[in-house]
Amino acid sequence: MFPLSALFATARRRILPSPTSLRLDHPKLFSTQPKPPSIEYTLSHPIYMIWGANTGVGKTLVSAGLASSFLLSPPSLSLPPTRKFIYLKPVQTGFPSDSDSRFVYNKFSQIFLHGIKNPSFTVLASNHVLKASISAADSVLARGSDFVPVVETGEGGELESGFRDLGLYEESKLGEDGAAAAKLICKTMYGWREAVSAHLAAEREGAVVEDSEVLEMLKRGLGIGLEGRGGCEGSGESGDKVGVFSLVETAGGVASPGPSGSLQCDLYRPFRLPAILVGDGRLGGISSTISAYESLKLRGYDVVAVVFEDHGLVNEVPLLSYLRNRVPVLVLPPIPQDMSDTLMEWFDEAQTVFGCLKETMISAYIQRIERLHSMPKMAQDIFWWPFTQHKLVPEEAVTIIDSRCGENFAVPKVLNNNFITQQFDACASWWTQGPDLTLQIELARDMGYAAARFGHVMFPENVHEPALECAQLLLEGVGKGWASRTFFSDNGSTAIEIALKMAFRKFLFDHGMLLDLPKAKTGDRCIELKVLALRGSYHGDTLGAMEAQAPSSYTGFLQQPWYTGRGLFLDPPTAFMANGVWKLSLPERIHPENVNVEDMGVELLTAFRLRDELFYKSRDGSSLAACYSSYISQALSLHSRMSEYSHIGALIIEPVIQGSGGMLMVDPLFQRVLVEECQRRKIPVIFDEVFTGFWRLGVESAAELLCCQPDIACFAKLMTGGIVPLAATLATDAVFNAFVGDSKLQALLHGHSYTAHALGCTAAAKSIKWFKDSKTNINLISEGSLLKELWDMDLVQQISLLRTVDRVVALGTLCALELRAEGSNAGYASLFARSLLQNLREDGIYARPLGNVIYLMCGPCTSPQTCRQLLEKLYRRLEEFGRANENLKSSQV
Amino acid sequence: MFPLSALFATARRRILPSPTSLRLDHPKLFSTQPKPPSIEYTLSHPIYMIWGANTGVGKTLVSAGLASSFLLSPPSLSLPPTRKFIYLKPVQTGFPSDSDSRFVYNKFSQIFLHGIKNPSFTVLASNHVLKASISAADSVLARGSDFVPVVETGEGGELESGFRDLGLYEESKLGEDGAAAAKLICKTMYGWREAVSAHLAAEREGAVVEDSEVLEMLKRGLGIGLEGRGGCEGSGESGDKVGVFSLVETAGGVASPGPSGSLQCDLYRPFRLPAILVGDGRLGGISSTISAYESLKLRGYDVVAVVFEDHGLVNEVPLLSYLRNRVPVLVLPPIPQDMSDTLMEWFDEAQTVFGCLKETMISAYIQRIERLHSMPKMAQDIFWWPFTQHKLVPEEAVTIIDSRCGENFAVPKVLNNNFITQQFDACASWWTQGPDLTLQIELARDMGYAAARFGHVMFPENVHEPALECAQLLLEGVGKGWASRTFFSDNGSTAIEIALKMAFRKFLFDHGMLLDLPKAKTGDRCIELKVLALRGSYHGDTLGAMEAQAPSSYTGFLQQPWYTGRGLFLDPPTAFMANGVWKLSLPERIHPENVNVEDMGVELLTAFRLRDELFYKSRDGSSLAACYSSYISQALSLHSRMSEYSHIGALIIEPVIQGSGGMLMVDPLFQRVLVEECQRRKIPVIFDEVFTGFWRLGVESAAELLCCQPDIACFAKLMTGGIVPLAATLATDAVFNAFVGDSKLQALLHGHSYTAHALGCTAAAKSIKWFKDSKTNINLISEGSLLKELWDMDLVQQISLLRTVDRVVALGTLCALELRAEGSNAGYASLFARSLLQNLREDGIYARPLGNVIYLMCGPCTSPQTCRQLLEKLYRRLEEFGRANENLKSSQV
Repeated sequence: MFPLSALFATARRRILPSPTSLRLDHPKLFSTQPKPPSIEYTLSHPIYMIWGANTGVGKTLVSAGLASSFLLSPPSLSLPPTRKFIYLKPVQTGFPSDSDSRFVYNKFSQIFLHGIKNPSFTVLASNHVLKASISAADSVLARGSDFVPVVETGEGGELESGFRDLGLYEESKLGEDGAAAAKLICKTMYGWREAVSAHLAAEREGAVVEDSEVLEMLKRGLGIGLEGRGGCEGSGESGDKVGVFSLVETAGGVASPGPSGSLQCDLYRPFRLPAILVGDGRLGGISSTISAYESLKLRGYDVVAVVFEDHGLVNEVPLLSYLRNRVPVLVLPPIPQDMSDTLMEWFDEAQTVFGCLKETMISAYIQRIERLHSMPKMAQDIFWWPFTQHKLVPEEAVTIIDSRCGENFAVPKVLNNNFITQQFDACASWWTQGPDLTLQIELARDMGYAAARFGHVMFPENVHEPALECAQLLLEGVGKGWASRTFFSDNGSTAIEIALKMAFRKFLFDHGMLLDLPKAKTGDRCIELKVLALRGSYHGDTLGAMEAQAPSSYTGFLQQPWYTGRGLFLDPPTAFMANGVWKLSLPERIHPENVNVEDMGVELLTAFRLRDELFYKSRDGSSLAACYSSYISQALSLHSRMSEYSHIGALIIEPVIQGSGGMLMVDPLFQRVLVEECQRRKIPVIFDEVFTGFWRLGVESAAELLCCQPDIACFAKLMTGGIVPLAATLATDAVFNAFVGDSKLQALLHGHSYTAHALGCTAAAKSIKWFKDSKTNINLISEGSLLKELWDMDLVQQISLLRTVDRVVALGTLCALELRAEGSNAGYASLFARSLLQNLREDGIYARPLGNVIYLMCGPCTSPQTCRQLLEKLYRRLEEFGRANENLKSSQV
Repeated sequence: MFPLSALFATARRRILPSPTSLRLDHPKLFSTQPKPPSIEYTLSHPIYMIWGANTGVGKTLVSAGLASSFLLSPPSLSLPPTRKFIYLKPVQTGFPSDSDSRFVYNKFSQIFLHGIKNPSFTVLASNHVLKASISAADSVLARGSDFVPVVETGEGGELESGFRDLGLYEESKLGEDGAAAAKLICKTMYGWREAVSAHLAAEREGAVVEDSEVLEMLKRGLGIGLEGRGGCEGSGESGDKVGVFSLVETAGGVASPGPSGSLQCDLYRPFRLPAILVGDGRLGGISSTISAYESLKLRGYDVVAVVFEDHGLVNEVPLLSYLRNRVPVLVLPPIPQDMSDTLMEWFDEAQTVFGCLKETMISAYIQRIERLHSMPKMAQDIFWWPFTQHKLVPEEAVTIIDSRCGENFAVPKVLNNNFITQQFDACASWWTQGPDLTLQIELARDMGYAAARFGHVMFPENVHEPALECAQLLLEGVGKGWASRTFFSDNGSTAIEIALKMAFRKFLFDHGMLLDLPKAKTGDRCIELKVLALRGSYHGDTLGAMEAQAPSSYTGFLQQPWYTGRGLFLDPPTAFMANGVWKLSLPERIHPENVNVEDMGVELLTAFRLRDELFYKSRDGSSLAACYSSYISQALSLHSRMSEYSHIGALIIEPVIQGSGGMLMVDPLFQRVLVEECQRRKIPVIFDEVFTGFWRLGVESAAELLCCQPDIACFAKLMTGGIVPLAATLATDAVFNAFVGDSKLQALLHGHSYTAHALGCTAAAKSIKWFKDSKTNINLISEGSLLKELWDMDLVQQISLLRTVDRVVALGTLCALELRAEGSNAGYASLFARSLLQNLREDGIYARPLGNVIYLMCGPCTSPQTCRQLLEKLYRRLEEFGRANENLKSSQV
């Protein structure tokens, strides 16, 4: 058994300042650290990323061809007369000898001069190199005449972390002054001198740049297209016409490392820009093109077209067959091998291919935008959302989720303004989520592998590797010390129904009632089994799970006419922080005056300096424990006196936190006493850890926090790392043995089609290991048994002091609060928090309420910095919300 | 609405011979077509497949190095003194100039002579080329002296489909006669002349070979290692020592096409041999190695090691980081570029790397075998299988499922004999399966993509692409013509509970009972809602779904103490083939004497020439229809007379086939009448299509067979192509509107964490499209609305004539039969079929019984040939089973 004292040995022990000494807007409480880049980019014009199946397959030629095709095509239905093409090269090695942005700039100029005899318009072309490693920068200066640097800020720029701000700039005006001016803007963001992989060049030249900086720089680069908005370019004036086009060219192959060592397909994933893959037309090129395509798909990219140079091997045939015509494959004419060739003839020859590619890209862009525009309405028309009153969701309130990137959604805003922004999934998509982007991509590969190896295979009487590994990890992890059997199902609700069937059988077995069953069978059933449960608990939506909860909004006749509530439901004492202090709230029936307080007052028993004191095992000896115990005993005695035939066949509780009930923290001491009382009476104990399991509350299993063990426990949600549904009901051997016998009819006759499906088990095995390994989860402390404090407790305390906040609970990955509300503003159907949530979404936080209870939830690997930023935003919005409500009240007075 | 007559317009119309004229073993009934290769290979020694990240990365050098390392290492703990190395090259292009098997053969000889000064043992080395395209074969003869052909069968062999049986053979004996002889066996299976991709060479040289032939040839090649078993080689004598080692070298990159055009990673997938990936050490090689690795993972391969040639770029660092040290990465010294170099020094230098690679491969092999040996016991110890009496499953009865390949499992047999064999998943893994290997691999890539793009994201009030596409496809497909809303959940059971909630609300709404609810709420509930359902139906294992089924083995107090059976359960008339004729069996309460038969007897009403006649809409006017109608009306009237407050709030049926109830076919006319009777009374109709949906019965929705439409229908199982759990409850707008109102409390307050999860919706969208597209499903007929007859009806009839068979039902992908059984041999808990099932497994058919009902189930794309083979095996085993039972009986007499 895991001693709680050890668990919290490393927890901070600070003297809490008295609440009155805290100021509401203490400046030190707010962070000054730079935020991680929030991904955002415009949807008002096409932006593509160009990838290579290998290095040297001609990505830059394709870029130059696209630039020419876009800028030099005659105006048409889709192209306005004035246009802007932005070419971005974030990472350039071999610089300055190799400079793809310069190549595009130069080639475009050549094509313009070569192809257009009497130009009726001007093109302003420029090439700009922002930063280079010192070694590359020195080389630029040494080269002198070749490059014509127009240095922007001081010679060679300033020195910073191995880079110089190069500010190298060249531009030219092509053609006579014509009807309107087009623009070609080429930019290299970072250059390194050695012509090797970027990570190697960066390391060797002492010029490493973090992924977040590259992304921030790229985000700014993608903003260039918007400068002219409202003017003659962009989609502003030209309606459906595409006046701006951005292209980002990667370096090397799709999985070539970027400067920090991250693979480029991972590095750029937060943007998830639509992709063009430049394939390989050589011998072996079918394979490398398909594999590169698959690597892009395994990161969630959409590949809009494949294009490659013809080498006479007809590689397009197997490629098209592989792609089943879902993606167009374009073939470029063979590229002259002679290095002195200006390629002008080649570009002429390739013109129709580039034109076709450009059209494909523009039409895919337009289709995407149209689809995004139509999605909210279609969703409203054909979905039936769970737990949703459709009448209360207008079209503009429907959120499109374009993708997930770790803890964040990518959310297109298409109704008012065309851009994609990022929102932190603070509801953890109904508490299922935990992975960061790294784990998400690992899981994606594992899902592909598991589907290819197994799909799903029959489970009973069989064994397959993912199920075996998953079961082992469950028993060694959340089931450690007590469980020895794993029963798989699909979701929390089914796991609970299974647990109830297990518990009731065990109860009948232990109490010698199996022999009475024939009697029970005949007509009037003389045994009735009920559960012991806590009010406010919630165990799922199927009837069996619902029967184990006390009457609530979910259980009325209108919702489920078959619900009867087959339980003895106790009122639990709850714990929370209010006005800066952790407190207990005791239900009416637990009379504090009965507590033998001797020399200490009731206050001392129900108020705590620190949250962790609530979990101290030393509370077992307190008079409150005795009080709890007698309350429980009385309730059980009363029940058994009331009916001879009705038995309490199981205890079922959500350890520590009752989730759907409103993020209520139950006094852990009460739950511990409850478990003891039941186990003493041989009533099987079920822990519903569907919500609390797998680090949700800072420990792998919430049972650790209670310091006691169940007979049966249910897990789901975060178990698979939030990828696919899977649930497990763990049980002791004693429970299992109540089902062993000579007949199949004694076995547990319950099962679902996808029992122990390979994808779920594979995801679970990976996630369970990931979260508890300090190499992959840097939040682990206390020898891997505890997460560090993710929510800044000072800020939490500040929040609890706000007048608009009734109570706060922060534990593990959860930070919840109840808004002070009255009447219809309180409770599950309340819309009280609506404006607050709307404002949080504008801050990039996607939260969902439980009536007037709102919460933030992160993953086990989310950094405390991120959590802090979330809390800060929440704090400010709560202040605002409070002020607005007060104004409303005073105006009503 | 889809007219049934059109549906069956193309069905065969044959004159059925009278049963007596059929002989039991009619020779024409049995197929003479060649079977598709059954995959089988030994586990008694390591077999690896060697793959390249690209062409020309040195796969053959690695093969030669491994051969030398294996054959020339001194005997050790893992290596016995006598050994055999088998090198197989299935596909060789550029032949005979390029011949990798010859290279391995030659290099090995050179290394032997170069490295071993005083050999104390002999090695017998051989190289054998089996078949070559005519063009390549001619070239061999033209070359003369270079190759020394020992032609086996006539000069140049015989001409067949563009190939010659070349039988080119060379061998040499290396070293003095020593203690024992080692063997190197090199084999090329197919050679083509042009040095291009195999598919192109095959096409250009008019020498195409089907995948199945390549696999069959490879299977024979892999059998070579077993010839010496029981002798001095193999694992027979040497205990744990590895005396034989097989290596299969692929051609080009991992996704290079094989001779038929199938990508090699797909072509060889049925074997799923453990893989060695030869990476690329050049610039760009990190990317191509990672992408190749990912393509292998996306086919379910296990990569045991990555090895590549050093080009001074330290590619191993990012590779190891990517692989997180889970797969060893080995680096070979740079290969001399000089073509005249014999590479002897290089092999010397690389010796330790090859030694290390060989040890890695051997130890991975040993680990795999050990794991396989331990899995059954571990499974018994920690799993709790659904619907399984553990006491009845001894360790040797536990099946290891190593992988799935389309409709087949790969099953290692490790207890008695070490090999992997293939079993047809005839239970379709609890009726979830349908995909062939092509769809499986497509789904695998899609699963990777969906996980990488979305993982899972919050659904209510949101929209994401996979959910939207899936909902659209459902409404346009199985919901066409009636459904307009999709409610997602996790499995059939939850879909049913949702359907019941929908139906009851609709009923209350339609019957003006919503106003009475406050009354119902207060204490004594004065409204009771029940379902109308059929005996023998089954709707899932959660309590709500169970309440909708009649009492059965699953519903007793021992299993579910809360079950009460909230329904009016009718006895349905069933249909089946018995003794060669389709018949109806009417329940007692439907009195045939009441039927107004006029000039035709009851016999004519209840016997049918063809199964399809059962579905004719013309039966609506029959007197049997009237008889059904009055039976139903009477039952409903009786129920409403019995209690004022009890209402039938929903009809729930499994259309056409009741699955878990024992594959009972209900008379479609009866169900149609039932639906009409209910809809006339405004009782909402639920179709439980969890089992029957998505072509299970030959049409996309079984409702098409009934020619009537429900108000609500439930789908799951095959919906995702059998990859992950997902369910949908479809409903009409009228049902949806009963939940629309001003309060959230009126909404349907039901939902599961993973509602509309992206992987499930993605898989469903892909599968739904796949099965109904005649480009991907060649079984489609009748303009894509019907599957062709998959089960040979003559054979089905033969089976129905067997004395041991009571009844047969064959429809769509299902062929079920009930064994004639009495007493405890009949019913769900029966073990009667055990020996029959055991024998079927020996025939490569993995079936599971429902008591004394056994069935074969295939996918919508499974070929009728495959089905025929299954039926033939079943027929023979049934004959055997019948004889054994008769012998048993007569011996008991």
